[in-house]
Amino acid sequence: MKAYADFIELVKEYYDVSSVEMLLDWDQETYMPPEGVKDRSLQLATLSKVAHEMLTSDRMASLIKELGTAAVHDALTTEQQANVRRAEWEYHRAAAIPSSFVKEMAKKKSEAFHQWTKSRAKSDFASFAPYLFKLVEMKKQEAEYIGYEDRPYDALLDGYERGLKVSKLEPLFSELANGLSSMVGRIRDSGTEPDTSFITCGYPIEDQKKFCRRLTDFISFNYERGRMDEAPHPFTAGTLHDTRITVRYYPEDPRPAFFSALHEGGHALYEQGFIEEHYGTPMGQAVSLGIHESQSRLVENIIGRSLPFWKHWYPALADTFPKQLEGRSVEEWYAAVNDVRPSLIRVESDEVTYNLHIIIRFELEDAIFSGKLDPKDAPQAWDEHMEKYLGVKVPDSANGILQDIHWSQAYFGYFPTYTLGNLYSAQFYDTMKKDMPDMDQQLERGEFAPTLQWLRDNIHKKGGMYEAEELVEEVTGEPPSHEPFMAYLENKFGGLYGI
Amino acid sequence: MKAYADFIELVKEYYDVSSVEMLLDWDQETYMPPEGVKDRSLQLATLSKVAHEMLTSDRMASLIKELGTAAVHDALTTEQQANVRRAEWEYHRAAAIPSSFVKEMAKKKSEAFHQWTKSRAKSDFASFAPYLFKLVEMKKQEAEYIGYEDRPYDALLDGYERGLKVSKLEPLFSELANGLSSMVGRIRDSGTEPDTSFITCGYPIEDQKKFCRRLTDFISFNYERGRMDEAPHPFTAGTLHDTRITVRYYPEDPRPAFFSALHEGGHALYEQGFIEEHYGTPMGQAVSLGIHESQSRLVENIIGRSLPFWKHWYPALADTFPKQLEGRSVEEWYAAVNDVRPSLIRVESDEVTYNLHIIIRFELEDAIFSGKLDPKDAPQAWDEHMEKYLGVKVPDSANGILQDIHWSQAYFGYFPTYTLGNLYSAQFYDTMKKDMPDMDQQLERGEFAPTLQWLRDNIHKKGGMYEAEELVEEVTGEPPSHEPFMAYLENKFGGLYGI
Repeated sequence: MKAYADFIELVKEYYDVSSVEMLLDWDQETYMPPEGVKDRSLQLATLSKVAHEMLTSDRMASLIKELGTAAVHDALTTEQQANVRRAEWEYHRAAAIPSSFVKEMAKKKSEAFHQWTKSRAKSDFASFAPYLFKLVEMKKQEAEYIGYEDRPYDALLDGYERGLKVSKLEPLFSELANGLSSMVGRIRDSGTEPDTSFITCGYPIEDQKKFCRRLTDFISFNYERGRMDEAPHPFTAGTLHDTRITVRYYPEDPRPAFFSALHEGGHALYEQGFIEEHYGTPMGQAVSLGIHESQSRLVENIIGRSLPFWKHWYPALADTFPKQLEGRSVEEWYAAVNDVRPSLIRVESDEVTYNLHIIIRFELEDAIFSGKLDPKDAPQAWDEHMEKYLGVKVPDSANGILQDIHWSQAYFGYFPTYTLGNLYSAQFYDTMKKDMPDMDQQLERGEFAPTLQWLRDNIHKKGGMYEAEELVEEVTGEPPSHEPFMAYLENKFGGLYGI
Repeated sequence: MKAYADFIELVKEYYDVSSVEMLLDWDQETYMPPEGVKDRSLQLATLSKVAHEMLTSDRMASLIKELGTAAVHDALTTEQQANVRRAEWEYHRAAAIPSSFVKEMAKKKSEAFHQWTKSRAKSDFASFAPYLFKLVEMKKQEAEYIGYEDRPYDALLDGYERGLKVSKLEPLFSELANGLSSMVGRIRDSGTEPDTSFITCGYPIEDQKKFCRRLTDFISFNYERGRMDEAPHPFTAGTLHDTRITVRYYPEDPRPAFFSALHEGGHALYEQGFIEEHYGTPMGQAVSLGIHESQSRLVENIIGRSLPFWKHWYPALADTFPKQLEGRSVEEWYAAVNDVRPSLIRVESDEVTYNLHIIIRFELEDAIFSGKLDPKDAPQAWDEHMEKYLGVKVPDSANGILQDIHWSQAYFGYFPTYTLGNLYSAQFYDTMKKDMPDMDQQLERGEFAPTLQWLRDNIHKKGGMYEAEELVEEVTGEPPSHEPFMAYLENKFGGLYGI
């Protein structure tokens, strides 16, 4: 069909430009020289404008309209319909926003990011504040452009997880917060505290790198179609044949490296698992950030922090770091990588407290965008929330409100997808275990292929065929829920902490 | 003036996209995983189409027209006029070519490049031939689109060096070929042959890298605004605040590394020397490929292969490679890095024979584009020319017609600018020596700052103010000529070979 073929050509060109933006971001975080930020911010601003113009062109509008008419729509395959549906959603969000606003936003984001790195280094919120306020103001404007039923913040949530709303998150997060807080209390009261001295006594970075390479090879990250580099804030970027993960290394403690490698590796398996023929179309892309995160957290936590996984890997680890692990057992290692401890920094937090960090960010963002919280009072609100949910005192803004890159990038509404990812991952895992009752034994034997095949068949190959909630139901037979995740935590940490 | 401001905004957006294309090329040659070429070729094809559409938009056309009317034009500053003039030239070349042709060309180039790397590895011209023929055919078509007075090839030459024509190159190259052939003969007949055994006996690559870093620091390559990486075919890419050079390393012989670092460093000094306020406009860009090459060859050869330069650097070199250089003198090193020897590979050839390699390529390209040579007979013609000009027998196409990347990229008309760069560099050097009679003593004392300042003032800061021939006359008082270059060679190699 001519209209569909023309539509796909435009969609693919839009994808080309978007994927180049992603590569420029990757380069900025890995190899770009310090002063390159000036030129890069101009390049990114122009590309964002170009991409926006492509997506919202008159030609795109008329093709989407034509493909939406009943007769034409019915003649499309299910996959083609999915492509049209998802492109239409993106089109409507983009078409609501003027192109000049998009370019301006890209520039403001670059400036804010640049300032954030400086402000965080000095732990000085005041110097970052004007940039943050400007981004909030622009995002409020963006929400007005896009439109919403209940709350402005809903318009932003929808950009990362289609159809997500505060009214869906509030009950979910409230039950989750209760369950997690109770568990944190029980763990504290248990009096059990794993020994982590041997895991923070110095691990040469070169050896960490080699071990990360082995871990990523193990999960079948394809290096013919990807790379692994170093970045202060690990992320995954790329396309089907060129998926790039980044890892951060701390000289004293190998956990950040191993688990960022597995986390980003999980993201990368998703990207590398799309079907070739759908390249550049929604059918060859992730459902949502939440689903993407489910893939990274499943590999990082459910698999990567499990006892069967380390039963296979511990001997190799002890060979690589014989001095550090002398006289230690796999059980001690397993306990140390699952140390639950309320702390200041989200990305270093454990599986239990992690989602409390997210809930804090969600509550603050919701308050800011519903006008209940003035951004200038955000640092105080941050500290109060940290005290309330985690019982920790924030010593300075570098370890508090300035810790995350997201707000400097105007990613408001993004954080909740991390927790959704955790919830989805536990739901998928339940189904996986039903389908493969001997999954633990496989991992213990060093077999990852069946797990990957399950992910390929149930999630990766489906690309953008479903929305997030639909996919969860399609795969697990249940709508998204916090219960499987809480049950997973109870089971795991019940064992570890005897609670 | 509103029209000029609007024009500059478009010009800068075009520059943003073009500079991203350059970065994607850099990434492709340095860090991209092998299979990434599939996605990269799509990205580059789309960006080339986008850039072309930007340059040839109706809005650009009408602004250029408006800025060209006498009253408006006269109200512009000289610098503004230069921006308009150079953009107009680019516009006219681009507007002659359909956008679909540009995208198709980008795709064909990617495919041809991909095939070339494989064909060269197998030394198999036949497998590359269909790709080459297609590119030649398309370039002939492009020449017809653009138009020319005398020969189709002129339309291609003009793309790299504005106004360049076969009728200008023929007399220049013919005199040059005579002079060089005679010199090669005299050197051969001199019976003098430098000892190069100690320069090919193994130099650890890590030490080569550190020394390249010192050499590039010495010439003031700014690492806050640039990087140095490894690439099989060294090149320079980037923008004012992000200029990237690449170097190739051979484990046995450090010359390719040192002189590619200095060569690309010379290119980079030019890029890093443009004036900030002209960023993204022709005034903040190179005059032409020939002028660009004059900067690289001046640093690589005239300075970097000179005795004063090595009188300063040899002690540090001997410290770094004590075993390899034991009992050797700076004069022996100087002779070894200036070994004149007819050979098969252009990029490894010396200052005397280098331009004969270029003249061969020019003659073949001219013959192909004037229809006198069928591309299928090109390998035989290549071998005959190598025998005629250099007296060497070509053993296989990897060491012959398949050695250069250029034809796989459809860079027909590009090679002559290398020789123009050599000629310009010698002319600039003559003027430099007049302005700074103690330049040799400065270099011997390890002072590069005055040389760089001269280049900044006379060449770099002028950006795109002049055309190549104008700049040469402006700086040296003479039109481009082969004589200063020949005199430079006679002086240098007369001394080295006693001829």
